Amino acid sequence: MFEDNINIRVRYADTDQMGFVYYGNYAKYYEIARVELFRNIGLTYKSLEEMGIGMPVIEMKTNFIMPAKYDEKLIVNIKIPETPKLKIKFIYKIFNEKNELINTGETILTFINLLTRKPKRVPTIMKDKLSKYFE
Amino acid sequence: MFEDNINIRVRYADTDQMGFVYYGNYAKYYEIARVELFRNIGLTYKSLEEMGIGMPVIEMKTNFIMPAKYDEKLIVNIKIPETPKLKIKFIYKIFNEKNELINTGETILTFINLLTRKPKRVPTIMKDKLSKYFE
Amino acid sequence: MFEDNINIRVRYADTDQMGFVYYGNYAKYYEIARVELFRNIGLTYKSLEEMGIGMPVIEMKTNFIMPAKYDEKLIVNIKIPETPKLKIKFIYKIFNEKNELINTGETILTFINLLTRKPKRVPTIMKDKLSKYFE
Amino acid sequence: MFEDNINIRVRYADTDQMGFVYYGNYAKYYEIARVELFRNIGLTYKSLEEMGIGMPVIEMKTNFIMPAKYDEKLIVNIKIPETPKLKIKFIYKIFNEKNELINTGETILTFINLLTRKPKRVPTIMKDKLSKYFE
Repeated sequence: MFEDNINIRVRYADTDQMGFVYYGNYAKYYEIARVELFRNIGLTYKSLEEMGIGMPVIEMKTNFIMPAKYDEKLIVNIKIPETPKLKIKFIYKIFNEKNELINTGETILTFINLLTRKPKRVPTIMKDKLSKYFE
Repeated sequence: MFEDNINIRVRYADTDQMGFVYYGNYAKYYEIARVELFRNIGLTYKSLEEMGIGMPVIEMKTNFIMPAKYDEKLIVNIKIPETPKLKIKFIYKIFNEKNELINTGETILTFINLLTRKPKRVPTIMKDKLSKYFE
Repeated sequence: MFEDNINIRVRYADTDQMGFVYYGNYAKYYEIARVELFRNIGLTYKSLEEMGIGMPVIEMKTNFIMPAKYDEKLIVNIKIPETPKLKIKFIYKIFNEKNELINTGETILTFINLLTRKPKRVPTIMKDKLSKYFE
Repeated sequence: MFEDNINIRVRYADTDQMGFVYYGNYAKYYEIARVELFRNIGLTYKSLEEMGIGMPVIEMKTNFIMPAKYDEKLIVNIKIPETPKLKIKFIYKIFNEKNELINTGETILTFINLLTRKPKRVPTIMKDKLSKYFE
């Protein structure tokens, strides 16, 4: 298992007229957490794209437990529960400033060749970067 | 069961640099489908809010099957599978212009009193509008 | 001069916690108006991109006069004031359901070759489609 | 004059299929810069709202000079050029990682009483926090 914690500030643009973060914006918070998790182990998603590798999301589940409010600093706890092969799973727990669990989620992504759009296995560079956490 | 079909045009703002609709934007398409379904049976979400009723989403599941492209006219098939009580479930199937199934989803919403934030049962007006479809 | 009127429904995702449309979302409304104006004269922006032509925005001005509210059906009056050459200018006036002027704006776009990113003159197909309105 | 520099990371959700930041998203970057500028002098926009003060944008101008790319760390240089009275003006210059000027902008905001929606003068707390920079 590999795990990280990413801080995200709720922006005005993220809220809706109910006064909380619009439910569609959690997907963006999950994306930021994934990207920062990889940056923290020395791998940028940008560099993957430059190698011709894309990572489309094929599945997402979300539970909205409590609302997130404007200007709160959220902590996204993100986990990769198992060694990725053809797919990679991420599990998210979002906490607010009072350390209350406000959201849980899960996404599954695949790897594709950006030119051919064909699926491929986990890129070697990602496998290598993650391997020490899954021994 | 109650069912409707809603057209949605993919906008440039909805796409990302992979060249397709950003995965977080399907939640917005689901919202539009819910709102238009209710409008089509004579009930606006706006009027519910004016009566002091909110409908926060508490659960969402999505399967991204094929990408949606810029300027495509999507059809969102939306279903309410059972009579709502404390919660209301919606099931979505999104088709592209070639009638290919590109996305399936599910959301569960609750009803709250917007002032007290307390949960409440399905509003009578909604129950009445939907009743004939669930006999 | 060429002119058109485009209807846009305000979506929940467009609002912010002040209870109105977030100021950044008018740019999206302008984009929709541009695209629908061209569709109405038989030219899709998508087809331009397929011909290798992009139209980046280089300048935008907006005056926010009155707020736009959730679920309102806005009318975007859009004008092309003069024959486009190296640039194309659009002027917008947005009216709410009470026919009040709530927003005015202006954007200037250029034409680029999507492969080389080099600027180019107005595409012949667009010039032809627009010519009868500028005689 | 008061001035600050704010870092913003370009997110995937911010890009569009042209491969760059969607032109409507700069308004969000400006908002983040304004909010962080005030936080850095000890005043949160959230606390202003809690005091019943809103700051709607009434005017925006933007020049899009060069595209911003996915994952770039942008620097937003933000200035308040003069003492705010009934309005407050902000001037923005956005630089990319190569220190190239990619965007310039300007917004004018007013102050309103959030309950009555009536305009008001610059809040005393803001005037006090800014005064030393305008002597």
